[in-house]
Amino acid sequence: MDTAKRVGFLGMGIMGSRMARNLARKGFQVVVWNRTRARAEELVKDGARVANTPRELASGVDVFCTCVADPAALSEVVRGPDGLFAGSRRGQLFIDFSTISPDLSLAMEAEAGALGLRYVEAPVTGSKGGAEKGTLVVMAGGSEEAMAAARPIFEAVSEKVIHCGPVPAGSQVKIAGNALIASMLQAFSEGLLLSRKAGVDPRKLIEVVQASGFRSPYFDFKGQQILGRDFSTHFSIDLMFKDLRLFLDSAAQHNVPTPSASGVAQAYVTARAAGKGALDIAAVITAYEELCGVRVE
Amino acid sequence: MDTAKRVGFLGMGIMGSRMARNLARKGFQVVVWNRTRARAEELVKDGARVANTPRELASGVDVFCTCVADPAALSEVVRGPDGLFAGSRRGQLFIDFSTISPDLSLAMEAEAGALGLRYVEAPVTGSKGGAEKGTLVVMAGGSEEAMAAARPIFEAVSEKVIHCGPVPAGSQVKIAGNALIASMLQAFSEGLLLSRKAGVDPRKLIEVVQASGFRSPYFDFKGQQILGRDFSTHFSIDLMFKDLRLFLDSAAQHNVPTPSASGVAQAYVTARAAGKGALDIAAVITAYEELCGVRVE
Amino acid sequence: MDTAKRVGFLGMGIMGSRMARNLARKGFQVVVWNRTRARAEELVKDGARVANTPRELASGVDVFCTCVADPAALSEVVRGPDGLFAGSRRGQLFIDFSTISPDLSLAMEAEAGALGLRYVEAPVTGSKGGAEKGTLVVMAGGSEEAMAAARPIFEAVSEKVIHCGPVPAGSQVKIAGNALIASMLQAFSEGLLLSRKAGVDPRKLIEVVQASGFRSPYFDFKGQQILGRDFSTHFSIDLMFKDLRLFLDSAAQHNVPTPSASGVAQAYVTARAAGKGALDIAAVITAYEELCGVRVE
Amino acid sequence: MDTAKRVGFLGMGIMGSRMARNLARKGFQVVVWNRTRARAEELVKDGARVANTPRELASGVDVFCTCVADPAALSEVVRGPDGLFAGSRRGQLFIDFSTISPDLSLAMEAEAGALGLRYVEAPVTGSKGGAEKGTLVVMAGGSEEAMAAARPIFEAVSEKVIHCGPVPAGSQVKIAGNALIASMLQAFSEGLLLSRKAGVDPRKLIEVVQASGFRSPYFDFKGQQILGRDFSTHFSIDLMFKDLRLFLDSAAQHNVPTPSASGVAQAYVTARAAGKGALDIAAVITAYEELCGVRVE
Repeated sequence: MDTAKRVGFLGMGIMGSRMARNLARKGFQVVVWNRTRARAEELVKDGARVANTPRELASGVDVFCTCVADPAALSEVVRGPDGLFAGSRRGQLFIDFSTISPDLSLAMEAEAGALGLRYVEAPVTGSKGGAEKGTLVVMAGGSEEAMAAARPIFEAVSEKVIHCGPVPAGSQVKIAGNALIASMLQAFSEGLLLSRKAGVDPRKLIEVVQASGFRSPYFDFKGQQILGRDFSTHFSIDLMFKDLRLFLDSAAQHNVPTPSASGVAQAYVTARAAGKGALDIAAVITAYEELCGVRVE
Repeated sequence: MDTAKRVGFLGMGIMGSRMARNLARKGFQVVVWNRTRARAEELVKDGARVANTPRELASGVDVFCTCVADPAALSEVVRGPDGLFAGSRRGQLFIDFSTISPDLSLAMEAEAGALGLRYVEAPVTGSKGGAEKGTLVVMAGGSEEAMAAARPIFEAVSEKVIHCGPVPAGSQVKIAGNALIASMLQAFSEGLLLSRKAGVDPRKLIEVVQASGFRSPYFDFKGQQILGRDFSTHFSIDLMFKDLRLFLDSAAQHNVPTPSASGVAQAYVTARAAGKGALDIAAVITAYEELCGVRVE
Repeated sequence: MDTAKRVGFLGMGIMGSRMARNLARKGFQVVVWNRTRARAEELVKDGARVANTPRELASGVDVFCTCVADPAALSEVVRGPDGLFAGSRRGQLFIDFSTISPDLSLAMEAEAGALGLRYVEAPVTGSKGGAEKGTLVVMAGGSEEAMAAARPIFEAVSEKVIHCGPVPAGSQVKIAGNALIASMLQAFSEGLLLSRKAGVDPRKLIEVVQASGFRSPYFDFKGQQILGRDFSTHFSIDLMFKDLRLFLDSAAQHNVPTPSASGVAQAYVTARAAGKGALDIAAVITAYEELCGVRVE
Repeated sequence: MDTAKRVGFLGMGIMGSRMARNLARKGFQVVVWNRTRARAEELVKDGARVANTPRELASGVDVFCTCVADPAALSEVVRGPDGLFAGSRRGQLFIDFSTISPDLSLAMEAEAGALGLRYVEAPVTGSKGGAEKGTLVVMAGGSEEAMAAARPIFEAVSEKVIHCGPVPAGSQVKIAGNALIASMLQAFSEGLLLSRKAGVDPRKLIEVVQASGFRSPYFDFKGQQILGRDFSTHFSIDLMFKDLRLFLDSAAQHNVPTPSASGVAQAYVTARAAGKGALDIAAVITAYEELCGVRVE
């Protein structure tokens, strides 16, 4: 596993920067890159080196990892003239932690294979806190061999790895999971808002939910954000909306009706129209609060 | 509290029969009534007496409890010429365990008050199992005084009582809670079905969900029903659809947009159109499985 | 037909006042009633007499007509202690021009029949202008005999009568028609708003629509209101929302999925949340314009 | 205009083949190409010549026109190694009659411009019949100069050209128009189905609609198809679903909520899940008929 000590990481967003830091702290030689270089340089104090281009990064590592915002960003970083593939060599491992469409993940695996690379799709869940503490859950897709090669990296950033099957099983599970999160939060928010509008203390709804069989730690987490009016971003409305669209696109492709996810997506369009896109997904409710003239607090 | 030993219970459905049995077992003198008498007589072996009419029942007890299917059934049992109010007397306590509209609950309290009765709305959650074991959660609405009078009854049937506020706070919280259940299950089902259609083992989605911050015991419960193809009824599609409509009606009245609940309700109409109304809510997915030509198993 | 010369009319709203005026102008002896008496008295100059109660009105006419806002209002005016039925006598004709639920219309026919009255449900379309000019379209439900008796009244207020079948066929057709209007207008509004947001002159969309096979006079009518920023009320958002709910309730009862009407209803909730309920249905778009920060003009 | 006599046409589908035939009949020298060559050869009897590749076609004409199924098909035909751009030369005119995304249309204009070509986007409406008779309506986007060059072509295939503005105004208007068509038809179908399920003759609904201010020739056209059970394809469910997704994608990009179009799209997913994708859009209702166990006839 010595040859896998040199790890590149591209995309220093909320998740990527924390994952790269954990890799550095656990003894990997980390090289980072970010479109806005300043955010990459913040990792220097953790012992990381900053590459000038994805291409340059790829040429000096054993493994390269990506964690970027969306399919378009991934395509550019990987396939561009200064991209990872341009600097890659046979035998390297490519791990993508981004949430992308199943189709793009299949294409990535095929293109990586043609270059002699192994590919694992490895979207994660656990939010900012899990990335910080290295307690993410990885939902991976890939061959057994590629999975084995990726283990040391996964161990450094996560507490659990679930191998969902060959590519794109990880992406499929990830977008379904995120659609579920968005739906739970939206239904929860609708209940909170109606309770409040009808003159009921919204804490009572949370108390009932959490005493019941459909309780979830998620309702405490998001309930505290909403009632505490703290919408700092763990996971932004814009990013979740992207994931909802990936889910709806996949459902459209496979001819699966999704009346719930479809309604939830409209709530995200509404929140973005109201200028909330950069806030945490807990803030979707604020667009409806403003419309309804009340606050859930 | 001796004077509250004689308790009437109306509505021997999945929930009511189990709650009445617990009251009998815990030493209350129980009188029961049910539209179809045979189901009331099943309680005789538990020591209950069967009344001929709600009116007769009311005349011989200290407390009367109702747990019926919908607002129309409650109205008939309570207000009819042979109904509870016709046989009631000042000082009695009226506890309604049904899920009804906030408006009807307000009307019940006003009418009960005019007759000198105390009224508590007490919808419950916990499904068939909780009713059986006496571990329901009660979300109650009513005055402090009426709540105090209802405590001994609540203790016999539940493990937790949450006083949500004055009437109709209990009803408001209940319908929001049920809309949340339906939304969680529908989003979960959409994810399972898309995963399956895309060739992914649906167990992997459940494994990821339950390893994550949005886990819930509910996903294990319903996941087992769906994968085990056991759709025997804990909570029927028809009853949940009634509750979704109560939620949507209340949201309409209070001008609260509900894009999620609105989409979920369409799934229930679809399941009812496909003839699934009497099955457990876990069976909504089967209407879509038939449409899509796959089974989540 | 001489015996039908004395006609009562209850409900002096946008539609009812204009219909009553046409009856007076065409030689009927008209008696009117309205909850707010002042609006009834405006008809005195047209030769109408004002009754003190629905009951009093019923006792002095051959035919009584109702055109009120919703099922609850109709129930009160007809069934109350001072209501029409209390003053009715065998052989009279009862025409309801309101838009009510099919179930309530069935109940009205049954109750009227028990009192020896004939009943016709006669919801209309044609908006304020059609009521003014007597060019409404009546979609009637009732027996052939009741229809024949109602003809002279219909001729005075409408240009076309379509006998849809026995009660409640008229109500069923009416609520489907109104749901269609709301859907056409909402889809039109979504197109106008997206065009505008994307920098395209919304007049171009209207020009294309009206040159195509899916053209409709309705798009010119509503397009002029929207582009001319004239949202004075022909048909209010509140009333249309009531009708959408009647349609969704009927669809729920008959187990018919309605993904379009369900989405459209959410737009009406949104418009009402934004305080637009009293404006014309053309103003639903303004709630979304405010959210999106643009105006279609 | 002599130099514009040689016209290439790519895409011999329902629309393209009829438009190419009209060009040939009106004196243009037409060269055609189609992925499945046999369908191109059907035009030989009308005087057209068949090209072996888009590239070859481009090299021998003054104007080339495309009318293909979707953005992916257009991209391949235009940008591929044997594509139109590979065979193009400065000064040619490129007219795209397909319905594509506004973004792709912008890209086409930019790429065409870089090659010295003029570009007009020219999606059409009028269905199979309009293409046959040359009575389509063109909603064009492009510069005044490119529009002037395209006129002779437009005159041969259409009866009306509406210049919506610069690219991508034509695409924006087109996708809004198609979303409107789909919404009108879906709302109409929901009304027909509920009427039928409630025991009302659906012809009565059509009669009322067509006597009212919201009448449209479209309701006669589609009403006849549905009642006559003739679902032969004028415009397929699959193609309309593609257009609904283009509309929803554009609305997502511009942050415009679309509760109506979003609900309608679910109806199309349902119809495709039920295997109706290749049928006319009038057949969406049949998926719901099968679910509800009735037929609108």
